[in-house]
Amino acid sequence: MVVEEKEISQAVVARLPRYLRYLGELRDEGIERVSSQDLSDIMQVTASQIRQDLNTFGGFGQQGYGYNVDYLYDEIGKILGLNREYRLIIVGAGHLGQALVNYANFERRGFLFRGLFDNDPQVCGKKIRGITVRPMEELADFVRENQIDIAVLTIPKTSAVEVAEQLAACGIKGIWNFAHVDLRLPGHIQVENVHLSDSLMKLSYNLSERCGNHVQSGRDIQAGACGEENPHFNAG
Amino acid sequence: MVVEEKEISQAVVARLPRYLRYLGELRDEGIERVSSQDLSDIMQVTASQIRQDLNTFGGFGQQGYGYNVDYLYDEIGKILGLNREYRLIIVGAGHLGQALVNYANFERRGFLFRGLFDNDPQVCGKKIRGITVRPMEELADFVRENQIDIAVLTIPKTSAVEVAEQLAACGIKGIWNFAHVDLRLPGHIQVENVHLSDSLMKLSYNLSERCGNHVQSGRDIQAGACGEENPHFNAG
Repeated sequence: MVVEEKEISQAVVARLPRYLRYLGELRDEGIERVSSQDLSDIMQVTASQIRQDLNTFGGFGQQGYGYNVDYLYDEIGKILGLNREYRLIIVGAGHLGQALVNYANFERRGFLFRGLFDNDPQVCGKKIRGITVRPMEELADFVRENQIDIAVLTIPKTSAVEVAEQLAACGIKGIWNFAHVDLRLPGHIQVENVHLSDSLMKLSYNLSERCGNHVQSGRDIQAGACGEENPHFNAG
Repeated sequence: MVVEEKEISQAVVARLPRYLRYLGELRDEGIERVSSQDLSDIMQVTASQIRQDLNTFGGFGQQGYGYNVDYLYDEIGKILGLNREYRLIIVGAGHLGQALVNYANFERRGFLFRGLFDNDPQVCGKKIRGITVRPMEELADFVRENQIDIAVLTIPKTSAVEVAEQLAACGIKGIWNFAHVDLRLPGHIQVENVHLSDSLMKLSYNLSERCGNHVQSGRDIQAGACGEENPHFNAG
């Protein structure tokens, strides 16, 4: 299939993994085809949003038939670049690094952890899920020799900038950045940030919002959503 | 200050923590005021985007003066609901749960971890950063008795739905969900998802994108960004 490429917004890209997840579940249930309306019902987004998103890539459905689940699953996987393998290293073998390396789903998707690095001599030499933690001094050579595609940064922001620049210099293609800092790297290096505290603040915003912490004007607030039964909630 | 509330999109809310981070850095450097242009330069977003975002909340700047750093920092903190404390529990005391409970920045922001839960008897009773891991049987009573606001779910998707429903039944207000499943909960419960594999797939999309994995039509691809020197990169 030839995908007619248009300008694809990151917002659409960000929604594709969710399509993939639901289609994978349908496939696992043995369902062969699905209409945009059915998909809309289970995913709780509008059918027109679904059609519009999938049309960005040329459309995969047929009027009156819907979408072939297997085919659409495979095509979205290809669009997401999941039809190949990626070699990864993790820099920072703390709890977060260990959580990621232990997550078997990544490996099933083709994200292969090849190395683990840390600057703590007490940690270096340890094996985590069969991967030896190496000292930072070996990072550059390892990335070059093992043709590493993606580096996962699970280190504090104070060291992330320097490490990212070092990785850029030895040819890394992508950085999955958990450090709470914006990395400024050459444009050909893809950076995807996971700023956990930003996500938590979005949650606190929505909690405060709903509980009328913000001064309201002309906005409906669902009565009783946050009640007197929890007086501490409106404190502060 | 009275914030004139308008419909605030989640996209704007999602950008506020980043403003807060940069303003915090300016403040720590002793800088008292900043123009939208200066902020634009350091944050690498357009000045008009900044003005538009901050105007959503009534605007904080003065023509010719710019923004007072301290004041803007505090106001954005308030908007994000950071002028109060939240009581949290973590359900799932694996590596990810431990990574989160050890992250001191959350506590500084007013997110106080009060409890840790796990269904593994081998883990229950252990202390992590002074917090005892409790069995799941104690979850409901603990949430009620300690007026827990937010539950962090760092458990597999297979158990997340059931646990979320249990939490909803005992009055939880927000869920920070790391399980790879969409939770269907009553509308007054705020859910913020961190789907790590979705983020990783966005990265693989952008890597494939750049390397011409997708069929292109009429789109500039930066020549040489992904070269023959890494033949494995285009495999698959």
